[in-house]
Amino acid sequence: MNIDDLAKGIAAGERRALARGITLIESGREDHRAQATELLAALPKGREALRIGLSGTPGVGKSTFIESFGMMLIGRGLKVAVLAIDPSSSRSGGSILGDKTRMDLLSRERDAFIRPSPSQTHLGGVARRTREAVTLCEAAGFDVVLIETVGVGQSETVVAEMSDVFMLLLAPAGGDELQGVKRGIMEMADIIVINKADGDLKPAASRTCADYAGALRLLRKRPQDPKGFPKAMMVSALEENGLDEAWAEVEALTEWRRAEGFWQHARAAQARYWFEQAVKQALLAQLEKPKAKAALTELSDRVAQGLADPTKAAQDFVTQLDR
Amino acid sequence: MNIDDLAKGIAAGERRALARGITLIESGREDHRAQATELLAALPKGREALRIGLSGTPGVGKSTFIESFGMMLIGRGLKVAVLAIDPSSSRSGGSILGDKTRMDLLSRERDAFIRPSPSQTHLGGVARRTREAVTLCEAAGFDVVLIETVGVGQSETVVAEMSDVFMLLLAPAGGDELQGVKRGIMEMADIIVINKADGDLKPAASRTCADYAGALRLLRKRPQDPKGFPKAMMVSALEENGLDEAWAEVEALTEWRRAEGFWQHARAAQARYWFEQAVKQALLAQLEKPKAKAALTELSDRVAQGLADPTKAAQDFVTQLDR
Repeated sequence: MNIDDLAKGIAAGERRALARGITLIESGREDHRAQATELLAALPKGREALRIGLSGTPGVGKSTFIESFGMMLIGRGLKVAVLAIDPSSSRSGGSILGDKTRMDLLSRERDAFIRPSPSQTHLGGVARRTREAVTLCEAAGFDVVLIETVGVGQSETVVAEMSDVFMLLLAPAGGDELQGVKRGIMEMADIIVINKADGDLKPAASRTCADYAGALRLLRKRPQDPKGFPKAMMVSALEENGLDEAWAEVEALTEWRRAEGFWQHARAAQARYWFEQAVKQALLAQLEKPKAKAALTELSDRVAQGLADPTKAAQDFVTQLDR
Repeated sequence: MNIDDLAKGIAAGERRALARGITLIESGREDHRAQATELLAALPKGREALRIGLSGTPGVGKSTFIESFGMMLIGRGLKVAVLAIDPSSSRSGGSILGDKTRMDLLSRERDAFIRPSPSQTHLGGVARRTREAVTLCEAAGFDVVLIETVGVGQSETVVAEMSDVFMLLLAPAGGDELQGVKRGIMEMADIIVINKADGDLKPAASRTCADYAGALRLLRKRPQDPKGFPKAMMVSALEENGLDEAWAEVEALTEWRRAEGFWQHARAAQARYWFEQAVKQALLAQLEKPKAKAALTELSDRVAQGLADPTKAAQDFVTQLDR
């Protein structure tokens, strides 16, 4: 594979090149990793998309929202990429975005790019791959990158760490279900979107929206929030209501943050965080090399039989680790 | 420090040597780490204590239980060590076992050794230190090592991974509080002990015990459990009731597991797990060296300013990492 050609193709916004680039990035093979690093370094710098993190449990209408929201953005002349972090994928083999037909219209748009979650690995690995995929999408000239997660365990934190704006999607609910959303997740949200504000569910959506608006007002004020944020609002992805308003809020928020310097500050923090994670991943990746794996298995057997001390064996292994 | 002398002191059961050994193990200094590894390798092999993991949230009477249970064991001629894994210690500066006066009688016994939780580090580091402290206590001739945790986040799993028997200590509660104990923690328990079965709380303790006995019967059968296990039982640490019975259950369980081969199997799995964790820790410990730290900070600054690609910078850093 010619990495320079691939980089040029991505920079020219070619979807096939982008897809191939992401496949390269997702590979666990050592030579592929080296090529992926080369690719990332060869991409044009300075292109920025708006990175929107989007979390919501199954059943809140996440696919419908992404479809409607994405189509609205494309209608405004924006290019939209959709990526996913799915912490459950290692077990289920990819449960979100696995099926592009969930976003039937969007997936057929020339200005949209939808990529299912990389599966069969731990969350740290998925996070690394998604982060690199975001970079590729930015280099390919996408204006908005939506990063979707189902919000199990740490996945919201991971998505929030790579997003400029974090949206939490909820369904209308009974009053006491407010308890169901953990405080930590509420504290990450910039905009809480109550979906399904249509038909029979409209009164419940209003109530839920008011409940969350109240709850958000009780949270500690964050310096990166302009007046009125974080906020709760209603949409109907099905009836395509409130989507323009949601986008207007995202734009108002990001413009304020850019003007006040919080945008650059957050981007720098994201890059630092990514770098630190990448260093740890790269260190631990040494254990996946065939030679290291074989040595580990043998030592582990000796340790299990009581023939070697675990700490000493680990120290010796790391000291003589062949790079 | 003469490591051979220290090892001999520990092997002779000298408490001061043991305390000094644990202090050495808890140190983050690089030269101390090397000495600690040397010490662990120099200790006599083949001495085994019964490792009992004990989890319970604040308020269930954990200190009182350890005091009463420990004194009962000493009365039987056994030597008892008490260690702790406190996941909250990095924030609070050590909230469990920090104060030996909590176990006033036990701490004055010649055959008891109480060590507060190592603080100011992440859970992985605490786990490594505690695991090594267990090894030192075994080499020092202790018969029982109690490993205490308050059970926040992953700490139960960490304790279960280094214990032969895992006890979950609970207080009497209303019927619906059964929900409060996560299924995952229930599944780790070998014996659920309802404490405070005394005075006014006795009826509630009976009810809670019956509730948990019922809940345990609904769990999937594990191969390492003899008939009747895992089980729920009542004690009063305050009135010293049920402690002999609890010990009898521990002994019955461990004897069966020894006879059936599960004991050796579990010990081998513990050693493997420890080894794997130690390898990861040793790899990541390279980042703590002053030279590596300085290089990381510089690179992180460049990445934050957009002058370097995070993935490439991480790869370069790991490749040229000076051991």
